[in-house]
Amino acid sequence: MRLIIVGVGLLGSSLGLAAKKHGLVESVVGIGRRPESLEIARNRGAIDVVATDFSIVAGMGDALAVVCTPVGRIAADAKRLAEINPDLLLSDVGSTKAGICRAVTEIGCRFVGAHPIAGSEKSGPEFGDADLFQNRLTILTPDKRNRPEDVERLRRFWTKIGSRVVCMEPELHDRILAKTSHLPHAVAATLASLPTEEERPFSGTGFASTTRIAAGPPEVWTDIFLENRLPLLDALNEFTERLERLRNAIKNGDTEAVAEFLREAQERPRES
Amino acid sequence: MRLIIVGVGLLGSSLGLAAKKHGLVESVVGIGRRPESLEIARNRGAIDVVATDFSIVAGMGDALAVVCTPVGRIAADAKRLAEINPDLLLSDVGSTKAGICRAVTEIGCRFVGAHPIAGSEKSGPEFGDADLFQNRLTILTPDKRNRPEDVERLRRFWTKIGSRVVCMEPELHDRILAKTSHLPHAVAATLASLPTEEERPFSGTGFASTTRIAAGPPEVWTDIFLENRLPLLDALNEFTERLERLRNAIKNGDTEAVAEFLREAQERPRES
Repeated sequence: MRLIIVGVGLLGSSLGLAAKKHGLVESVVGIGRRPESLEIARNRGAIDVVATDFSIVAGMGDALAVVCTPVGRIAADAKRLAEINPDLLLSDVGSTKAGICRAVTEIGCRFVGAHPIAGSEKSGPEFGDADLFQNRLTILTPDKRNRPEDVERLRRFWTKIGSRVVCMEPELHDRILAKTSHLPHAVAATLASLPTEEERPFSGTGFASTTRIAAGPPEVWTDIFLENRLPLLDALNEFTERLERLRNAIKNGDTEAVAEFLREAQERPRES
Repeated sequence: MRLIIVGVGLLGSSLGLAAKKHGLVESVVGIGRRPESLEIARNRGAIDVVATDFSIVAGMGDALAVVCTPVGRIAADAKRLAEINPDLLLSDVGSTKAGICRAVTEIGCRFVGAHPIAGSEKSGPEFGDADLFQNRLTILTPDKRNRPEDVERLRRFWTKIGSRVVCMEPELHDRILAKTSHLPHAVAATLASLPTEEERPFSGTGFASTTRIAAGPPEVWTDIFLENRLPLLDALNEFTERLERLRNAIKNGDTEAVAEFLREAQERPRES
């Protein structure tokens, strides 16, 4: 199988490394805008062929092309690939799905949306990790117009890389991820920005852990927030309502209500 | 020097282990309510003498007694120790300071408030760790009625254990810690309780990290929230206002405002 990766940041380069580690491909074509990033990814062995222009995919048959650019660019990048080579099987690794899937499938190309729930606050090909997707969950959001064999091919691809695969509607994906990923990022960023420079030294490992993800790349997360705007606004409302409930319990000195709130939170499994 | 530890949970047992590791004491007296916890602490070498009654401190001269019970109990425990043995140098490790210091110093005993900024979402003597305070910051909140030599003795004690020591007013301590510790806990608990059981599997390492501290003991944190009620309510208001600013930027599709918010948060140092 031939693999094309568009965008060789943390996820793109990790995908190249993982596909090679598990023997799924012999060589990977990396397409990117910045020659420096492509060079880093190539030096790390994540990609083998480097291109700054999409035209390289012409005549590559039904290779698998995975778009790993920020979510705001995925639909346009996928469409361009399909224009140049309509035989490509297209996918992505974007953290939002409904908007992307709608935009790409409307042109009738072979696109199967995917989102491996894996990442890091680090960014760039220098942090590419062949095991990033190991034991993680990858969500596929196939469309009824997708050929079953294309969905199956994607499922096998992610399974062989070490990921568990689940299929769901793109809209459901976006509603869930708003709560489990996008809202936590918004909250972590808000917490991180609260203490002044003088107050910051008086923070412990709890603060570090709670705000760790706020170190993630702002452009990537801005894209995600705006792409998943409505589900994220719903999640923010639900969060604010719950926090308000806790705030009132504290304000009223209601020991039992505060304890009950914290007990409920404590009992939820958090390991991923 | 003789060391008495009241309350042998995570902090109390870690303190006993640390004081012994650094050769500050030969033996530690542990006072607690639950014989099982005292036994675990003794088996782990955190304490040597076990007592369920405060009367053991009678006649122990000016030993150092550190109260490591939940913040709602510290003032009462310290006062009881002072009643039985007024020569004791008293301190604590509570996460809130103003209320405790006010309550204890008004009876005129030798109490110097302390808060080592160290901990874990784990609780109980089984997790006691001799290195818990290593390279951490300990805040002392001396009162003007404290003898300078008592403050100095506490400072040396915490320094020898491997902690850096800073002195500040208890009220300032509480305002800062509301932002760097108590608010993050309230927020983490709220985030943790949001996804349903069905949605939970679709969370990654970001969610795990952001909500890790919500696994902390509910009783301990209920006490902290209520003891530090007003500063925490202020911090909650500030947090909600900032989150609202981000929410509006997302709602209005204001890419630049969202990116700027996330950039500001990203640039803040988070390591502790």
